[in-house]
Amino acid sequence: MDDLQQYVETVGKTARAASQKLATLSGATKIAALQRIAAGIRARRQQLIDANAKDISAAQKAELAPALIERLKLNDKRIESMAIGVEQIAQQVDPVGQTIEGYVRPNGLRIEKRRVPLGVVLFFYESRPNVTSDAAALCIKSGNAVILRGGKEAFESNRAITRIIHEALTGVTALAGMSPVQLIESTDRALVPKLLKLDKYIDVAIPRGGESLIRAVVQDATMPVLKHFTGNCHIYIDRSAGSMQEQVRNVCVNAKTSYPGGAVCNAVEHILFHKDVAAELLPKVCKDLADKKVEVRGDERSLKYFPAAKAATADDWGTEYLAFIVGVKVVDSLDDAIAHINEFGSHHTDAILATDTTAIDQFVASVDSASVMVNASTRFADGGEYGLGAEIGISTDKLHARGPMGAADLTTYKWVVTGDGHTR
Amino acid sequence: MDDLQQYVETVGKTARAASQKLATLSGATKIAALQRIAAGIRARRQQLIDANAKDISAAQKAELAPALIERLKLNDKRIESMAIGVEQIAQQVDPVGQTIEGYVRPNGLRIEKRRVPLGVVLFFYESRPNVTSDAAALCIKSGNAVILRGGKEAFESNRAITRIIHEALTGVTALAGMSPVQLIESTDRALVPKLLKLDKYIDVAIPRGGESLIRAVVQDATMPVLKHFTGNCHIYIDRSAGSMQEQVRNVCVNAKTSYPGGAVCNAVEHILFHKDVAAELLPKVCKDLADKKVEVRGDERSLKYFPAAKAATADDWGTEYLAFIVGVKVVDSLDDAIAHINEFGSHHTDAILATDTTAIDQFVASVDSASVMVNASTRFADGGEYGLGAEIGISTDKLHARGPMGAADLTTYKWVVTGDGHTR
Repeated sequence: MDDLQQYVETVGKTARAASQKLATLSGATKIAALQRIAAGIRARRQQLIDANAKDISAAQKAELAPALIERLKLNDKRIESMAIGVEQIAQQVDPVGQTIEGYVRPNGLRIEKRRVPLGVVLFFYESRPNVTSDAAALCIKSGNAVILRGGKEAFESNRAITRIIHEALTGVTALAGMSPVQLIESTDRALVPKLLKLDKYIDVAIPRGGESLIRAVVQDATMPVLKHFTGNCHIYIDRSAGSMQEQVRNVCVNAKTSYPGGAVCNAVEHILFHKDVAAELLPKVCKDLADKKVEVRGDERSLKYFPAAKAATADDWGTEYLAFIVGVKVVDSLDDAIAHINEFGSHHTDAILATDTTAIDQFVASVDSASVMVNASTRFADGGEYGLGAEIGISTDKLHARGPMGAADLTTYKWVVTGDGHTR
Repeated sequence: MDDLQQYVETVGKTARAASQKLATLSGATKIAALQRIAAGIRARRQQLIDANAKDISAAQKAELAPALIERLKLNDKRIESMAIGVEQIAQQVDPVGQTIEGYVRPNGLRIEKRRVPLGVVLFFYESRPNVTSDAAALCIKSGNAVILRGGKEAFESNRAITRIIHEALTGVTALAGMSPVQLIESTDRALVPKLLKLDKYIDVAIPRGGESLIRAVVQDATMPVLKHFTGNCHIYIDRSAGSMQEQVRNVCVNAKTSYPGGAVCNAVEHILFHKDVAAELLPKVCKDLADKKVEVRGDERSLKYFPAAKAATADDWGTEYLAFIVGVKVVDSLDDAIAHINEFGSHHTDAILATDTTAIDQFVASVDSASVMVNASTRFADGGEYGLGAEIGISTDKLHARGPMGAADLTTYKWVVTGDGHTR
């Protein structure tokens, strides 16, 4: 067995052992552990900023895009909100042990569907360092051990955060000698396929990031995978939206520009205008966006209404820009809008702006997306905004969990069936 | 593109088109469609028996095990229960459109988690022909199109059932020109890997059957897989079970022998006796089983209490016999029983017989199985017995659905978020 194989085997076994301990940990112990982590993050603020500075300087040397460097950066405010994030997860209702359903059958058998942890989670992610503390906290809350593999650009920051977590957990007696949170402290790519073969120890792999990462994970994984693609999100402006001009303009600007650099999966990438309202609304929405330094790319009909736009190419419609770029297009009907979204979208989050309830119902029923927004910005697709607390990510899969995933989505259930000597 | 590839592409596209129609079908239309299928099964009884006779005669020529031939057989009673099964599925509450959760956020956004069909299900299964009508009915009820790949030993029976379904659905106007239920009418094994690459059209693959089938599916599938392994189920008889001798004997006999030939996944395969009750209970339970023609294989200590047993080998503990064979073993403690079950079991269904509530709680919390039975036969692990109606199978996976899977487990959800121009 080579060294890398030895290493991943040890990581897997360590996680499995910790998961067995975590599964039966009391809620109070988990809360105490998370509070210790939050306190550690605050106490080690300077250490975090120093480690992060190394990542930032490496990123600048590597000439990463400014928006990506911005995402990477830790400052006092962001560190405080990491700590608050962990505290909020601590205070959530404990999902473990919940009875999802419970009833007595006619023969007297009591049937109970009881929530239990998944076991061991293998989590791949990129850039933002706060994801490290969020993911660790969510996994602890839901009774899972986690193996973290962060992006190499946040390597030093992730290492510093994980050290704080280890230090905090050392003080938890029930976890003595256990490592519920492990960071892969190597950027060697050869580790990834080896990790993905550890279905003996790992219950689920969650890749959150770019398409190439996710394809690699899906191809190699022998355990189930929950994919977190970034989103190619749409807003469709219905023919019935003429009377809500103000809201249309606000929602479009918010959906595109409210996150710095537009570099977030729930930002809108393409806006579809029904032909009956395009003359009125398209130029205003596009001008609002252009005023915010968004590059507008339009189809042929859009260019007539907003000549300042660049001509979109066929490749634009399937593209997730993750930048201040938006594609606009005029459609002939609601059906055409739905067909476009189902063909080119990534089934993440898509919105309709409309007053016609029939159009709204049809859009909601027919758009095959994890989140369908009605008269609201796509930016609301988020675990916090949905009231789940922090999220481990936004699943673009249909099985197990779809859309924002909170602590409860990191659990499964077991059936507990109680009789008094029942035979069938 | 070769002929087989062409064929599977057509099957995939046809299923995808049907699924889009099925997703918005009214509950009444689905009920009517299922009732037509039930009526068709009754009307074509003789046709089914004739087709089944061909399978039975082929199975006899191929010298299949008598228990397998018994499972394959259709008679008046079994055909009537197929029809009743479809009618019961028709009468279930429609899972599609259900609001799983719904609430209003402080900012006034209404958040709703709404149940929707998965889309297209690819289902692999073996032997029993009633699985064909159950699976088709469950998929229609839950708004999914299904591609069926049954075992070759039931080929003629499955073909006859599917023809009845097609005939019945021809009368449903809303499904005109659609094929929601397709049977792969070829036993060519080369089709399987090709089907498993159709993630463009198929949302989930569900293999239900032997280990080699499931391994092949997991290895080749590019879509998510829900595995339905057969079960290596255990009963653990605790030291506190001495006062419930009658129940212990009944449950053990029931769990092993109530299904013909023991050829069912929820039959018990191994019984563990706590050392403190082994002298009293082991000989009685083993004699009861031997009287029912069950072959008993015991570890060294068991042989002392029941010398008529064969000596078990190390291979026995991981074996799912699916036959009238049982392995018995004496364990030193509850912990040893739990460790044995978690190591050798298949995480399907495991039971404890005990009066001590502390032991029961520990067993329930620590045994990592889809169903944990307390003082009840393992044979209850079944969708019908849990009140789910018919089941598509019993999932041994942890993600999405665990244990018996009914119609609701063939759905996912979408988040529907409604505002009045909300921005973030």
